[in-house]
Amino acid sequence: MKGDLLYEGKAKKVFLVEGDSQALILSYKNDATAFNGKKKANFIGKGKYNNLITAKIFDYLHRKGIKTHFQKSLNDTEQLVTKTTIIPVEVVVRNVAAGSITKRLGIKEKTVFSPPLVELFYKNDDLSDPLINEEHARILTNVDPFEIEQIKEAARAINDLLLAFFQSVNLQLADFKLEFGKDAKGNLLLADEISPDTCRLWDMETGEKMDKDVFREDIGDLIETYDAILQRLEAVK
Amino acid sequence: MKGDLLYEGKAKKVFLVEGDSQALILSYKNDATAFNGKKKANFIGKGKYNNLITAKIFDYLHRKGIKTHFQKSLNDTEQLVTKTTIIPVEVVVRNVAAGSITKRLGIKEKTVFSPPLVELFYKNDDLSDPLINEEHARILTNVDPFEIEQIKEAARAINDLLLAFFQSVNLQLADFKLEFGKDAKGNLLLADEISPDTCRLWDMETGEKMDKDVFREDIGDLIETYDAILQRLEAVK
Ligand SMILES: Nc1ncnc2c1ncn2[C@@H]1O[C@H](COP(=O)(O)OP(=O)(O)OP(=O)(O)O)[C@@H](O)[C@H]1O
Ligand SMILES: Nc1ncnc2c1ncn2[C@@H]1O[C@H](COP(=O)(O)OP(=O)(O)OP(=O)(O)O)[C@@H](O)[C@H]1O
Ligand SMILES: [Mg+2]
Ligand SMILES: [Mg+2]
Repeated sequence: MKGDLLYEGKAKKVFLVEGDSQALILSYKNDATAFNGKKKANFIGKGKYNNLITAKIFDYLHRKGIKTHFQKSLNDTEQLVTKTTIIPVEVVVRNVAAGSITKRLGIKEKTVFSPPLVELFYKNDDLSDPLINEEHARILTNVDPFEIEQIKEAARAINDLLLAFFQSVNLQLADFKLEFGKDAKGNLLLADEISPDTCRLWDMETGEKMDKDVFREDIGDLIETYDAILQRLEAVK
Repeated sequence: MKGDLLYEGKAKKVFLVEGDSQALILSYKNDATAFNGKKKANFIGKGKYNNLITAKIFDYLHRKGIKTHFQKSLNDTEQLVTKTTIIPVEVVVRNVAAGSITKRLGIKEKTVFSPPLVELFYKNDDLSDPLINEEHARILTNVDPFEIEQIKEAARAINDLLLAFFQSVNLQLADFKLEFGKDAKGNLLLADEISPDTCRLWDMETGEKMDKDVFREDIGDLIETYDAILQRLEAVK
């Protein structure tokens, strides 16, 4: 069933699917990278956690009416998704200031954004994923202004859903990154992953960082942390 | 009449006006800086050219119905303006790709933006004037979303007017930077300067750069260039 390797990224391998030209297999790797690839490491088991956590979250979002690429988990590290043409824009939603924005704009860590802040970044490693505005998005991609508005609306709706979801397992969602793609029929789908690699999750009681910042800042055991996240999510009804 | 020095910037000194708390005197300096202040020089006569060129342009914009801070020229290097509270956002309008955007987004020099591209930058030297989106502007300043829309609309209208103005003297307006402020009554006014320091101007026949790029790229005589711009503008009816 698994076909040729289509693309190898920093966190996942993407395979074609024999007999289904509209599907892909995402294979989660154990590699961790940060700071635009400048910091690197490998954690046995990381791929499994991100695969299973992403599956949990996409399943939840699907049940809440969000259109996503996710079809099903295949095994511990692989999932079947609908093939899309990825829009080369990373959509970041921030509920609370953390990470790059604090340095970029001099905003104090933990400043609350109300309403949540939506940022667009041009997905381009050579340019280090620069911040863009909606007019840049129109110029750099083939999405029209209406679709950009749709994407931002979807990101806000997903944020509302994820805030509630993580709150139910005692986690504060500080910020996260989304990618969207268009399927063969032109439908806009939520794609890629949502995992502790792509979210900032803080324990609501202790404030403890329970995401990739553990690796970025060398402040804990990544595998233990990701395992704790999966366990909390598996306990959800 | 000239009161205390209120502020000294890289290009201008700002003085209070005795007996008129609602006015300021902008005194244009001979200093030139580029690349966030990393490159510096002094050109005898530069202040005069930017003062007189700015006066010409603001006078034209005023006649076309744009609300500006400009009141009158006082002498070769000084002008009387309405005091405002400057909104710390630099508004850049680009008709053609040049300068920073070509590196930041990998857009080929001279790519035409149609419609023109409007960018906002947070006016903050310590942060090197980072690009921002409209939501950042709302968070970082006290302007509301409606005012940001007003500012962008004004910038587009000013671009249309300036394109025609410069075209009449055989100059292509590639891009320029604007600042807006609010007067004591809360009116939004176009403020600061519009000069070869803040515009990219290309001779329509030869393509020659006739603006601060002459200094940035060491490709010509700044004073001769600015003098040529003033002469062309003085020839306008
Ligand atoms: N449904 C999908 N259809 C097509 N491509 C997808 C889909 N979902 C995710 N992708 C793409 O698959 C790739 C996943 O690989 P990975 O995340 O490792 O790499 P990357 O995003 O290119 O780089 P980085 O390592 O910085 O994330 C990404 O390019 C992602 O945009
Ligand atoms: N009408 C106005 N009311 C109040 N301040 C003004 C007005 N017009 C311009 N200014 C401000 O006066 C200053 C002009 O100085 P100048 O342009 O040299 O310095 P700067 O913008 O702080 O730094 P830079 O040298 O990077 O431009 C700017 O801060 C500008 O925003
Ligand atoms: Mg990725
Ligand atoms: Mg200035």
